[in-house]
Amino acid sequence: MPEVSPNAAPTPLVPGGGRAAPAAVPATGDRLDRWVDCYAGRTAGLTASAVRALFAVASRPEVVSFAGGMPDISGLPLQELAATVAGQVTGHGTTALQYGSGQGAPALRELIPSVMSAQRVRAHPDDIVVTTGSQQALDLVTRIFVDPGDVVLAESPSYVGALGVFRSFQAEVVHVPLDSQGLVPEALEATLRDLARAGRRVKFLYTIPNHHNPAGVTLAPERRPRIVEIARRYGVLILEDDPYGLLGFHGDPPPSLQSLDPGGVVYLGSFSKTLAPGLRVGWAVAPAPVRERLVLAAEAAGLCPSAFAQAVVAAYLTEHDWLAQVHRYRALYRERAGAMLEALDEHLPGCDRTTPDGGFFVWLTLPEGLDATAMLPRAVTARVAYVPGASFYADPDGLLGRHQMRLSYCLPTPDRIREGVQRLAGVVTAERELLQAFGTPPAGRPLPGTAYPAPDQG
Amino acid sequence: MPEVSPNAAPTPLVPGGGRAAPAAVPATGDRLDRWVDCYAGRTAGLTASAVRALFAVASRPEVVSFAGGMPDISGLPLQELAATVAGQVTGHGTTALQYGSGQGAPALRELIPSVMSAQRVRAHPDDIVVTTGSQQALDLVTRIFVDPGDVVLAESPSYVGALGVFRSFQAEVVHVPLDSQGLVPEALEATLRDLARAGRRVKFLYTIPNHHNPAGVTLAPERRPRIVEIARRYGVLILEDDPYGLLGFHGDPPPSLQSLDPGGVVYLGSFSKTLAPGLRVGWAVAPAPVRERLVLAAEAAGLCPSAFAQAVVAAYLTEHDWLAQVHRYRALYRERAGAMLEALDEHLPGCDRTTPDGGFFVWLTLPEGLDATAMLPRAVTARVAYVPGASFYADPDGLLGRHQMRLSYCLPTPDRIREGVQRLAGVVTAERELLQAFGTPPAGRPLPGTAYPAPDQG
Repeated sequence: MPEVSPNAAPTPLVPGGGRAAPAAVPATGDRLDRWVDCYAGRTAGLTASAVRALFAVASRPEVVSFAGGMPDISGLPLQELAATVAGQVTGHGTTALQYGSGQGAPALRELIPSVMSAQRVRAHPDDIVVTTGSQQALDLVTRIFVDPGDVVLAESPSYVGALGVFRSFQAEVVHVPLDSQGLVPEALEATLRDLARAGRRVKFLYTIPNHHNPAGVTLAPERRPRIVEIARRYGVLILEDDPYGLLGFHGDPPPSLQSLDPGGVVYLGSFSKTLAPGLRVGWAVAPAPVRERLVLAAEAAGLCPSAFAQAVVAAYLTEHDWLAQVHRYRALYRERAGAMLEALDEHLPGCDRTTPDGGFFVWLTLPEGLDATAMLPRAVTARVAYVPGASFYADPDGLLGRHQMRLSYCLPTPDRIREGVQRLAGVVTAERELLQAFGTPPAGRPLPGTAYPAPDQG
Repeated sequence: MPEVSPNAAPTPLVPGGGRAAPAAVPATGDRLDRWVDCYAGRTAGLTASAVRALFAVASRPEVVSFAGGMPDISGLPLQELAATVAGQVTGHGTTALQYGSGQGAPALRELIPSVMSAQRVRAHPDDIVVTTGSQQALDLVTRIFVDPGDVVLAESPSYVGALGVFRSFQAEVVHVPLDSQGLVPEALEATLRDLARAGRRVKFLYTIPNHHNPAGVTLAPERRPRIVEIARRYGVLILEDDPYGLLGFHGDPPPSLQSLDPGGVVYLGSFSKTLAPGLRVGWAVAPAPVRERLVLAAEAAGLCPSAFAQAVVAAYLTEHDWLAQVHRYRALYRERAGAMLEALDEHLPGCDRTTPDGGFFVWLTLPEGLDATAMLPRAVTARVAYVPGASFYADPDGLLGRHQMRLSYCLPTPDRIREGVQRLAGVVTAERELLQAFGTPPAGRPLPGTAYPAPDQG
């Protein structure tokens, strides 16, 4: 069967640029599966969609991919890092290569508060749980709080990887609108009021306040105390996901939600964007009783995070000027964001878009009637890729986000970004001409499965 | 509140050697927890028991600990390993430090079949899913198969970390007896027949055929086809956990269950005992449809395993004589097992015990009337530690395994092992005298929570 990993043998670009063919990757639940009747209810819909195969194609070098979320780590000082890593093996190998604490290495937990200090996250090392990337922290928090049918609130749109976790624990995601200033407090309050009236059990509000994935917006400082106050009044925990907080183009972000109510917020941080994702080191800051459960859940799920990866991160923070590296990343992504925004203004002036002031993403809205999912095969044929907006909504009908898309500027160079936007504009123009000639096509069935790139599909 | 990690400040040894005090670690569900009403049903019982605090004490150097399961990695060639690791950073840093495939790096997946060849596991690299330690594989398999209330079969006793995973997905564990030849086929068949009659849904049989944790026994070759045949007849998947398979004292183990029915078995392997646990690299071999779901579940749970850790393992397998290292480990553990068995025969001749032919563990049965859980504080006071047998059973009444214990010989030197067994014999003798003087104490309530050491509590 066709392999959807980026390591698959080269395949021709999508022939004919037709609509995505749902048959490209066979569903796993076919008659050949001896265990088809044995899977847990939570795996319903756990299939790789046809779109996955497109992203494998989009990883080819001739395609300008705005689809992935991989940071550009080409500027890391590899020689110095190699010495650091080797030093951990020779100097501390018998502990760095051994099992470690389920909560995370004390040496690293001592250092993390200074990394978070720019955002005024208030945390003692004892409050920190180191995780295997912050994705694992998302998984663990969901695991300890969510029973099937519980409600989780998430921005509209929200991070596709979080929606996948919530789905896998059978949560019902209720979206709350955001605008250019981030999550809308009035909308949050109205949503919570309606859910309370309906007797629904809301377990937490999942939010990415800084340089939102996928929307590219940042929660305004004046909204932060209001969001915290509303959540507190309704007794709803806040899960504050902050992988991009240090990557602001114009300095540090506003104070974290966690700093406004440490007992009411679980804060998630990550070294994936400020150092390197291949180490898989993230962390959670949680109120003591929640933290205790997180540690026990983490031990059940994986015993302990990698002592070796933690030793490398701790040594990097100690031996290198990590903040200077963060500043280099900021400059790199600021330049790329600028190139993308300029190119969008020039080539796609009719499309509404967000203006990121940090992070990796622009959220683009196509003219009425266009369908970003249906257009993707034709875009890939034109050698440009993006993630269709529908992926960022928990919407079984696949209607939300249909005419939207996420554009990542983190990996391509400015020249490639300009080239890619030009190609995208060509596809959009052709699509509009089709639309004018033949009218709006009927809404297709939503594509089943995961319609976003694999972690390494740039 | 008291920290139960090994990094806690030194505390006095258990005063008075009294019965374990359940109040030593406050339960997390107390009135101070603002979120006490919000946790998911699956976290019921997710508390650190008083026994955890004892293991923190047991990690102190003056205690001979037979409690942990940490391999002895002091013999690893750290200088050479440092060069290997540094080479991965300088030569391949931009891929090794980046996000990777959710299924695992192709370079490592190409090498794993040769590691498994001694056990005749039949697998193409495409059938392999690399995981963050094989504990994560256990978690993922359970996640995709188990709905609350489903039955999982496990040996009696079974690996405490697997029981924790099954509990966290609300499975009902039904134990199947094992003897000195491993899992008993007739007992498996009778159990499956009874469950089928009762209309229960059995999702899989979890088994550790080689050098069992905690029982120390190996499934006899002639039983293997029978186990596979019975499972197949009842339509039950086998989850074959094999972290110790390469650590046989007298050569390779019998052919894997997987080799007898590749479509009916998910096989789990690990580099934690043959290389180093601090890298957190394990793997699953699964039938294609199961493997596809495992990959998607792994992406939801953590995006991808560490590309860096995988690059290090792949380079180690390529650049070093890994099999020679395995042979050194075999000799090391064979010597320690020998020391423990001799000492047990000399000092505790009245206790029934298993005879491991590989791996890390001896399973000891105390004379009738003794309670290994109740005795543990007094043992720690006498500067010797073990894991009480009750931890290895899914038994809410805490009665199973009461007079049994797991003894690990993997970490202490032979001299320390002899010293520890002598101390243990002293405790058992004193306990028997108490028993003769005062009679059998009433069965205590089972201790709540996780009554086994943290991953790094040696």
